[in-house]
Amino acid sequence: MVPMITETKPDFPENTDFENLLQECSEELGILQRKARDLEIPIIIVFEGWYDVFIGEIINRQILPLDSRGFDFYFTDAPTSEENKIPFIFRFSKKTPPKGKIAVFDRSWYMRGLIEHLLNESDKFGCANLNLKTNLEAVLTETVNKEVIHTPKFNRLIRTINNFEKTLFDNGTYLIKIYLGARKEKRVESRKVWKNLIPYEIDKRSTEKIYKKDIHVIKEVIEQTNTEYAPWKLYFVNQDLDEATAGTMKIIIDGMKQIIADAESKKAVEEEQAGLCETNAADSAAVLLKGPLDAVDLSLFYTKQEYKKKLAKYQRKLAYSHYALNLNKKPMVLVFEGWDAAGKGSAIKRIVQAMNPRYYRVIPIASPTDVDQKYHYLWRFLNGLPPCGKTSVYDRSWYGRVMVERIEHLCTTEEWMRAYEEINHFEKAMTNNGIIVIKFWMHISKEKQYERFMARSLNPLKQWKLTDEDWRNREKWNEYYNAVNEMIEKTNTDKAPWVIVEANDKYYARIKVLKTIVERVEEELGTEMQEIDFPISNL
Amino acid sequence: MVPMITETKPDFPENTDFENLLQECSEELGILQRKARDLEIPIIIVFEGWYDVFIGEIINRQILPLDSRGFDFYFTDAPTSEENKIPFIFRFSKKTPPKGKIAVFDRSWYMRGLIEHLLNESDKFGCANLNLKTNLEAVLTETVNKEVIHTPKFNRLIRTINNFEKTLFDNGTYLIKIYLGARKEKRVESRKVWKNLIPYEIDKRSTEKIYKKDIHVIKEVIEQTNTEYAPWKLYFVNQDLDEATAGTMKIIIDGMKQIIADAESKKAVEEEQAGLCETNAADSAAVLLKGPLDAVDLSLFYTKQEYKKKLAKYQRKLAYSHYALNLNKKPMVLVFEGWDAAGKGSAIKRIVQAMNPRYYRVIPIASPTDVDQKYHYLWRFLNGLPPCGKTSVYDRSWYGRVMVERIEHLCTTEEWMRAYEEINHFEKAMTNNGIIVIKFWMHISKEKQYERFMARSLNPLKQWKLTDEDWRNREKWNEYYNAVNEMIEKTNTDKAPWVIVEANDKYYARIKVLKTIVERVEEELGTEMQEIDFPISNL
Repeated sequence: MVPMITETKPDFPENTDFENLLQECSEELGILQRKARDLEIPIIIVFEGWYDVFIGEIINRQILPLDSRGFDFYFTDAPTSEENKIPFIFRFSKKTPPKGKIAVFDRSWYMRGLIEHLLNESDKFGCANLNLKTNLEAVLTETVNKEVIHTPKFNRLIRTINNFEKTLFDNGTYLIKIYLGARKEKRVESRKVWKNLIPYEIDKRSTEKIYKKDIHVIKEVIEQTNTEYAPWKLYFVNQDLDEATAGTMKIIIDGMKQIIADAESKKAVEEEQAGLCETNAADSAAVLLKGPLDAVDLSLFYTKQEYKKKLAKYQRKLAYSHYALNLNKKPMVLVFEGWDAAGKGSAIKRIVQAMNPRYYRVIPIASPTDVDQKYHYLWRFLNGLPPCGKTSVYDRSWYGRVMVERIEHLCTTEEWMRAYEEINHFEKAMTNNGIIVIKFWMHISKEKQYERFMARSLNPLKQWKLTDEDWRNREKWNEYYNAVNEMIEKTNTDKAPWVIVEANDKYYARIKVLKTIVERVEEELGTEMQEIDFPISNL
Repeated sequence: MVPMITETKPDFPENTDFENLLQECSEELGILQRKARDLEIPIIIVFEGWYDVFIGEIINRQILPLDSRGFDFYFTDAPTSEENKIPFIFRFSKKTPPKGKIAVFDRSWYMRGLIEHLLNESDKFGCANLNLKTNLEAVLTETVNKEVIHTPKFNRLIRTINNFEKTLFDNGTYLIKIYLGARKEKRVESRKVWKNLIPYEIDKRSTEKIYKKDIHVIKEVIEQTNTEYAPWKLYFVNQDLDEATAGTMKIIIDGMKQIIADAESKKAVEEEQAGLCETNAADSAAVLLKGPLDAVDLSLFYTKQEYKKKLAKYQRKLAYSHYALNLNKKPMVLVFEGWDAAGKGSAIKRIVQAMNPRYYRVIPIASPTDVDQKYHYLWRFLNGLPPCGKTSVYDRSWYGRVMVERIEHLCTTEEWMRAYEEINHFEKAMTNNGIIVIKFWMHISKEKQYERFMARSLNPLKQWKLTDEDWRNREKWNEYYNAVNEMIEKTNTDKAPWVIVEANDKYYARIKVLKTIVERVEEELGTEMQEIDFPISNL
């Protein structure tokens, strides 16, 4: 059940000695932080609020008691040029805390969402926003007003935020969101204080006129993002700084106590259930279930002559496509998944042979490192995402969650079952921001795999490619087969489709991959790709 | 001895089958990469060269044979807004490869150095460069000409680059630097090819007029950065692409062979010497050597009353200083080193109590993580450096190299002895770019330390701060004493001075730290700091 948003009013007795109380609260906060660290809970604390009511000072008083090894502080300002090239929400995904750490946000995706998404420019892809006016005043005065509420843009922003926070919560990250408001007298008073204190800190935005216009929109955003998994706390800073600090600290302390209790009980449940998964999985191994892979015609092939001709043709078209994408500032993500030895590597090679290294990157995905494992499972894929005009080729990807992690029990059943939707949201954030996404499943028969494993084991230059793990995976062929069928069915979307590649014949597979990419670019750019006379490498 | 720069002309026989040769070279390159990976050698390959002679295509052919897990490719373009806020060379330090990896740079600190440093704007601090014209054409046409050679700016750029490369080499990273030139006919020819191929790729800069002007400067830079530790290879791309690719690949293959041989022989020497260090160190433990610490008057103190008054005064001035630095876009680095329990943490607290969290960051330095250890020892400090207008407070720092790493034999004698100079260069890169640097050594007596350890061990809220390691370090008091004396003597520079803080009395120490910072800011900004009426936290 979604909690009501009501003002939080800590019940401080009349003659509270706030200096003393704050010392006590600080100690308590320090203890809670160390407890959360030991339990490996990641926590996000978001501060939003009206301008110039000493938000910075209040936040400083919340982090001073914390051990500096245990938290990161982020002041959310206009995006850097780098950040502006990636989808909006990923800028914040990158800053989510690892296990046992706290991330404190002074302003967040809320403030930036309002500014960047409710602007006219917001529909355009991030790249076009490089010259975005980041002057808050102009933005808030001109564009944020009541009429934006419930427009498609507005609704999309709310959905984006709620999906982001839900995915975090579902994967073990807790959120404490605090909105610091101030009543009119306090707003007027604090403006005066600031003006006298530090003349250049005073903010022209914080006039009553703007307040009246904006507060409706802010209220609506807060109401629609007040969820069970990430509720808002509303606190009015109408007292002196010590009292306001104590009030805010109480919210955080209560929040952390609840989080710790919740995490402890979740852990207990998980440990209890841990035994059950094993047996479930073993059952599914036996029978092959129906799915899209059944219809694949693995007899398709090209002769060497056909292959050479088509390769030249499509690589030339791809070279042209690559420059065309760059010119049009279109980013592209190519995901390669497939059986071991299905020819992912050699297909990728045929792609990048026709590309300029300035504009492409191959991202090989191995097991997560120690650092990766401290984060949300999608976190480690964020750094490879292409900025505008560039292409990222993922050699394996986030689909590991619903394949190897599922089958090897590296995550719970609940986790991989939830992952289909999370991945769809993840890819939607890309496609919504103009990234072209194509996902290839390189499909071969079990016999063909055996043949290729043996060939590898005999070739001294390729032996390093074949590992014991490959043989072990092969033993679970049926389990993988079923998992892949389910994966393709559940994550095959209009904008980020799966392409099953018949790969028993390497020639056929490579051409299909090249052709698919070229045709998709043609579709996206609305023009035919030329077969340019370009020196293609054959290394 | 510095090798002469002569053109590399591989001796290919008349009727070489380049397609075949390239396949062979590719395989060899793959084998060398895996060897370098197993030996954990980091390698940097730099490509510079004249425009539009298919540099991108040639580089692509060098990286296609590499295992994508083993290298990173960087195309060096205009800096991002984030990069523009940090000292020039650090932008590249951040991209140096970890152990066993190759970093390939398509353009590098050479091209960017020419563009950014030989401009008139170059003397200004990076922040002012945010609006730097990054239009290459304008830059090269207007400003790079013969007259810049041997100006102070030019010389500083050369020194910066050579120091950067020497520090890398000394710490185990090898460089292969390749300049790809082209004779006039080839330049004219390739311009035509590009124009026909892909109209929008053609580069207006690459005219003969500009070539004649620029090449003198480029030649001079190459000559002055052709060092024993990072020699240049000059290759003219006058043949067809296959031959040029083979020529370039030969350079890389030969370079890698030499690197591998060199690394292997270095390793053998190191292993031999490993036994000797131990005894050296044990000797030095006994006697206390003379140094700056001897003169410290540890009896200095303030009464509680004096302290409270001064604390209020200097924290208010510091609050003002902090905003003033921000307004003036001045970044500041405060380094805290000192004995365990000398009061580093509590001094830092008194600083940040008066600051706005948006503009400061406390960076606690613990032992390096697994990831850190794969990099050059200064690498892990780069991410914390402050962008313009912000302050970074390092709680311990890069001085670990000449203290704990020296005393615990975590590096070789040669390494820590060399580190003084490396650290001076590192800090010079900061101060040259306008960063205020102050380094505090918090000094207490051995008796005072014992007293504080005991107090901590009895306080349940502070027990977590005291570890077994603290007691072990204490046993090596004399060794640390000598190391600190030497460190202060060798790294106390005009622009990045050491301030020894008499810290037996915590009150005295905190005030001295605050006062030092305020006075330094006054000096830097040339105005007196006001004692503003600002709500300072006492948490």
